[in-house]
Amino acid sequence: MKSVVVNGYGTIGKRVADAVSAQDDLKIIGVSKTKPDFEARMAVEKGYDLYISFPEREKLFHDAGIEISGTVDEMLEKADIVVDCTPGGVGAKNLAQYKDLGLKAIFQGGEKHEDIGLSFNAFANYSDSFGQDYVRVVSCNTTGLTRTLKPINDLCGIKKVRAVMVRRGGDPHQINVGPLNSIVPNPPTVPSHHGPDLQTVMYDININTVALLVPTTLMHQHNLMVELENQVEVEEIIKKLEDTSRVMLVKANEGLGSTAEIMEYAKELGRSRNDLFEIPVWQESLNITEGELYYMQAVHQESNVVPENVDAIRALLEMEEDPEKTVQKTNKAMGIL
Amino acid sequence: MKSVVVNGYGTIGKRVADAVSAQDDLKIIGVSKTKPDFEARMAVEKGYDLYISFPEREKLFHDAGIEISGTVDEMLEKADIVVDCTPGGVGAKNLAQYKDLGLKAIFQGGEKHEDIGLSFNAFANYSDSFGQDYVRVVSCNTTGLTRTLKPINDLCGIKKVRAVMVRRGGDPHQINVGPLNSIVPNPPTVPSHHGPDLQTVMYDININTVALLVPTTLMHQHNLMVELENQVEVEEIIKKLEDTSRVMLVKANEGLGSTAEIMEYAKELGRSRNDLFEIPVWQESLNITEGELYYMQAVHQESNVVPENVDAIRALLEMEEDPEKTVQKTNKAMGIL
Repeated sequence: MKSVVVNGYGTIGKRVADAVSAQDDLKIIGVSKTKPDFEARMAVEKGYDLYISFPEREKLFHDAGIEISGTVDEMLEKADIVVDCTPGGVGAKNLAQYKDLGLKAIFQGGEKHEDIGLSFNAFANYSDSFGQDYVRVVSCNTTGLTRTLKPINDLCGIKKVRAVMVRRGGDPHQINVGPLNSIVPNPPTVPSHHGPDLQTVMYDININTVALLVPTTLMHQHNLMVELENQVEVEEIIKKLEDTSRVMLVKANEGLGSTAEIMEYAKELGRSRNDLFEIPVWQESLNITEGELYYMQAVHQESNVVPENVDAIRALLEMEEDPEKTVQKTNKAMGIL
Repeated sequence: MKSVVVNGYGTIGKRVADAVSAQDDLKIIGVSKTKPDFEARMAVEKGYDLYISFPEREKLFHDAGIEISGTVDEMLEKADIVVDCTPGGVGAKNLAQYKDLGLKAIFQGGEKHEDIGLSFNAFANYSDSFGQDYVRVVSCNTTGLTRTLKPINDLCGIKKVRAVMVRRGGDPHQINVGPLNSIVPNPPTVPSHHGPDLQTVMYDININTVALLVPTTLMHQHNLMVELENQVEVEEIIKKLEDTSRVMLVKANEGLGSTAEIMEYAKELGRSRNDLFEIPVWQESLNITEGELYYMQAVHQESNVVPENVDAIRALLEMEEDPEKTVQKTNKAMGIL
């Protein structure tokens, strides 16, 4: 049983803590917060030992009646590995401390690949992280691309990918972000950084991406155009995606024609926080024309990278050499379809 | 001076009426409404003769204090040409009546190409409509695609186009449409009908399109990936688009990084209804990589087809053989940049 701590108990951190707790070979021995907010209170109510990032704020937590177990420095001393879920850019700053402690660490997609040196996806390049000290789980969008492009590449090879990423403006709880009634090229330069980011885990893929923001909070949506190396029938693609872990085919004509309806489906699954860890692909959208595969998929940005964080722990701690086995183990514990 | 009537004084119809009125060789001699709403009242206040589609509703208009000049049947008798701006599908039903009257007619993009038999864009295929009786001005999205793809094709040839059309859910006044907080593949099948629709005016173009709806009302947004026949520098594309009528380059770094900011710019132009007839193209997005041009543009769906409706009148009535001359004339009268 390995001891894991989560530095930054926010949108991703709280989900990673729960996912780790569900595993029989891992346990959470601490989570951290910077502020005594409702998430801090609920972490303690759930039974997590809460540590604070800034010792000088101890009184704030005390005044709020939220019990703390110590400081982040103290938390890190006890851990076998830390999952850093702090806001983008903070993780890279924390890296020096982890190095000083000789503590293995997993970072999120908000960090730059160059700052961490190695990126991770359980399906694309698991073995490259085996026994390593520091790794970055690629972002929700990149994870979403990898989940479907990797099996397609395995099946029939990919010559070139073009993808237009229609991104949600903010998460449901983010009240200070936009856009409210606008479509925002983001970045306005093309191609976007998402293509190069995919190449940090699928090293040889030829991809160009275009990205924009729209006024929705529920999911990202991806439009993919994939030139295939070898010709296959669309039924073979469907079969391959059906057999692929953490990918699910959905049908618009069964009432799942939008991101809102898909998240309504997620509610019916009865999971904690109504999360959808899987990447839904619209079955009707799958079409091959002139040797090119077209399809559309969605990404639940709050949760889809969580299982990969669990897998990454097993890779860094050399707990499981076979990526398929850790994926199966993670999935089973998390109730992934 | 030719006499024009507008059947259907709604979102497009009222703009066409004003654009026609601004020309020195055309006059509006009647517009029609089905209901005595604020648009009907304002049409009369503006000085348009108002005709009603359903004679049995005369009392409704009378009770509302809105003066009518007769029925649509009477209006059509007096006209040299009718611009049909009724809701999609209604125009095709009206065609039989126009044929009986021997009256030339222009339809909108909501009608099917097959139902009208000929589609129109001033830049792509003007001469094919010269002297014809019935023509359909292609939809706002197709007009937007034509405006930029035609000059690029003229400059360097196009091998293949891929386009992802991010469409507004509804117009600003449409209170009963969605989505509110969702991304909707629409259609969920790929490719969408927009590619074939472009081929009704750019006959030989190889294009595949993907379309979705998002929660915004202001503009559509297009993401284009264009494989070029002959290699050019991006500066040549910029120059070509700068020289192209009804296209404008905008810079995100000048505060025009979204559809909302572009429509704010349109307000500063001081035009009636803050319309933006031109297609804005984000200059930063223009990039050529591996022989493929990438760019992003937007479409003001309420107004961009209006100048083409004016041009189409001159084509059908054989008033001007040279498309460049009618485009210039239309532009000047409408204040197009």
